[in-house]
Amino acid sequence: MSTGETQADLRIVTFLTDFGQRDHYVGVMKGVLLRRAPGARIVDLTHEVEPQAVAQGAFLLACSLPYFPPGTVHVCVVDPGVGTHRRRLAMAANGHFFVGPDNGLLSPALADATRGGRPAGADYAAAPVHLPPEVEAFAIEEESLFEGRPSATFEGRDVFTPVAAFLASGGRLADLGRRVESILALPAFRAPFAGDELDGTVLHIDRFGNLITDVRAGDLPRTPTIVVCGRLLSLSRTYADASGLTAVIGSSGFLEVALPNGSAERTLGAGRGTRVAVLP
Amino acid sequence: MSTGETQADLRIVTFLTDFGQRDHYVGVMKGVLLRRAPGARIVDLTHEVEPQAVAQGAFLLACSLPYFPPGTVHVCVVDPGVGTHRRRLAMAANGHFFVGPDNGLLSPALADATRGGRPAGADYAAAPVHLPPEVEAFAIEEESLFEGRPSATFEGRDVFTPVAAFLASGGRLADLGRRVESILALPAFRAPFAGDELDGTVLHIDRFGNLITDVRAGDLPRTPTIVVCGRLLSLSRTYADASGLTAVIGSSGFLEVALPNGSAERTLGAGRGTRVAVLP
Amino acid sequence: MSTGETQADLRIVTFLTDFGQRDHYVGVMKGVLLRRAPGARIVDLTHEVEPQAVAQGAFLLACSLPYFPPGTVHVCVVDPGVGTHRRRLAMAANGHFFVGPDNGLLSPALADATRGGRPAGADYAAAPVHLPPEVEAFAIEEESLFEGRPSATFEGRDVFTPVAAFLASGGRLADLGRRVESILALPAFRAPFAGDELDGTVLHIDRFGNLITDVRAGDLPRTPTIVVCGRLLSLSRTYADASGLTAVIGSSGFLEVALPNGSAERTLGAGRGTRVAVLP
Repeated sequence: MSTGETQADLRIVTFLTDFGQRDHYVGVMKGVLLRRAPGARIVDLTHEVEPQAVAQGAFLLACSLPYFPPGTVHVCVVDPGVGTHRRRLAMAANGHFFVGPDNGLLSPALADATRGGRPAGADYAAAPVHLPPEVEAFAIEEESLFEGRPSATFEGRDVFTPVAAFLASGGRLADLGRRVESILALPAFRAPFAGDELDGTVLHIDRFGNLITDVRAGDLPRTPTIVVCGRLLSLSRTYADASGLTAVIGSSGFLEVALPNGSAERTLGAGRGTRVAVLP
Repeated sequence: MSTGETQADLRIVTFLTDFGQRDHYVGVMKGVLLRRAPGARIVDLTHEVEPQAVAQGAFLLACSLPYFPPGTVHVCVVDPGVGTHRRRLAMAANGHFFVGPDNGLLSPALADATRGGRPAGADYAAAPVHLPPEVEAFAIEEESLFEGRPSATFEGRDVFTPVAAFLASGGRLADLGRRVESILALPAFRAPFAGDELDGTVLHIDRFGNLITDVRAGDLPRTPTIVVCGRLLSLSRTYADASGLTAVIGSSGFLEVALPNGSAERTLGAGRGTRVAVLP
Repeated sequence: MSTGETQADLRIVTFLTDFGQRDHYVGVMKGVLLRRAPGARIVDLTHEVEPQAVAQGAFLLACSLPYFPPGTVHVCVVDPGVGTHRRRLAMAANGHFFVGPDNGLLSPALADATRGGRPAGADYAAAPVHLPPEVEAFAIEEESLFEGRPSATFEGRDVFTPVAAFLASGGRLADLGRRVESILALPAFRAPFAGDELDGTVLHIDRFGNLITDVRAGDLPRTPTIVVCGRLLSLSRTYADASGLTAVIGSSGFLEVALPNGSAERTLGAGRGTRVAVLP
């Protein structure tokens, strides 16, 4: 993967974590990054993933990827297993770099076909997936890159950010450790059919209280009926077109349940994992 | 408007939205910006405007403008009408650029005299205002700049940020669409007199629970009495000078109601729109 | 202190405040900074210090410093005395620059030995400390640098950020005002012994509800028993190793009380200032 040596120092490095913003954790990762890769351009994807919600984090990463240029390095840390022997990964796929724990969070680096489908009625759960040749993944083992002696509780600072700085500075993946053949991945974010019905689930709730599901726009029947928390909804083109609870195609191509000028989350008492069925 | 071609790539781009920070929305706008204008310097004004609170957003923009240099591009998205046929604007005024919906949010680009006054007893409401010749405003129509086929729910990503990147890279306003003669604007942020009394209103509540009003320092009588939620207050020079509820001249020159070491918001049960009268 | 003139314009400037993110305050400071030092790299340490919690702010600064390179300028504003005659400081120590009020917030610029110890049973309180020769501290008096006529309520914007821009551009501390011999400082963040027992206190609560104490890892007995809110806990190596409430060595070398997959803060009803005793 060559992205032009002279540009290496200006690469974008994104951060996606469940660290929140009330602590110094995110600031400290940026200190480590800029000390090691002074020209890096930093973008926060979000730090408000719910604590340890790996599937939510992976979904937000998937929604973000199309808008970043090749060469971007994505540091992703939602890591219930920090300090244990789960692997740490650095990957390249589609011209982007990914750094984070091997727990499904980096799934969006893989094509849908590689990840497979979610069984109807099931939740998103990570399982080993064999990597296609165009995806390069390495276990992070080269401890000389680490920040001091890694903390058992903050590998984002001590392991993942130093590796991101290494890659943003033009470092080679192969210098990080052994190439790996498979990683843990979540199924593709796409609600499965159960007969005629789409079996959707809420993956994320946004600031406006909109419920963002895994139902893809392209899978919708012509005149869908959406069933959520005992309510039947139809589809609007925009928030402004609707009065009361409605469903719209959201900005990443997934079905959302929304209450314009209100909160669908509060009105319905819904949360991540709430089922959203779509009937033809 | 010429701001020096060699500097164009280093222009500051600010974001002011009601998107919050728990989602990927803001991060994705920054990805679009940096992909198209790699040298842009990003500053978040705030993303915590209350959902769809256009007047609050405009007020925070007004308080921010004096501190940014000429050439800055301000991307403002508080947009209840997203996806409808309301116009999208790109403007230049006082050496700054503004990009956002035509709903009053961009009012601070205009001088007070152009915007006119708020009638006593009324709230801030947007109305058409004829533009003076020194303000250049264009409808954004050049779809070739857009990000993909614009989402009906996220023009911040698909329309406004691409236009900001275009302007930050030295692009010309006139290449975006038709010049417009008038835009929707809010009255100047300045409490009107009703007889001897200033008829103030709370425009914003800050992190400390201070109530920030539209009463200007220069309009205050010599020994003002401030009436809010049935309480009578006098004016302190600093927070530290006061014990208990007080009023101070805030950092943007507007009267604030504050409770040092506490929250005026909670203590008074006040909110945006609470009336604050000032008697001589 | 020379950090290389050609690099001056690329210096990192960090911000640590209690301003929160719902207002324009932080954005405006960044506008002032970039207008005056266009090449500065900005890092937010955090803006969520609890309002006027000087010791909490100083602790988060102390946890952050080791990860930033020499030449970094730290702008710190947690300032209950804003607008009063408390001094404003600019300091250089260990190759870093510090700008902020003289109220104890900048204590981490000083070595532990200089700051002295917290008496058992006491809280962290600022007291005058004589500076060693290797720490250069100056009172900020050169008003020509200020932004307009400083607001009595926002010296972060009008005084501290302009001084940071001056230093980030290679300006000399000695040009700011008189050198000072002593500043207000908090005791070193290190729980004292009371007999065999460590007398710890909670300095910060993080996003995960972990209680971060001032008990240093190196001071722990071999098999510590931790007493907090009437509960007895033992020490785990990682969050994942524990079931239920536990104590771990946190990422900055201090003892934390944590509830993996839950919140120690809520479960214990603890807060900043909660005592955490460690028995051998």
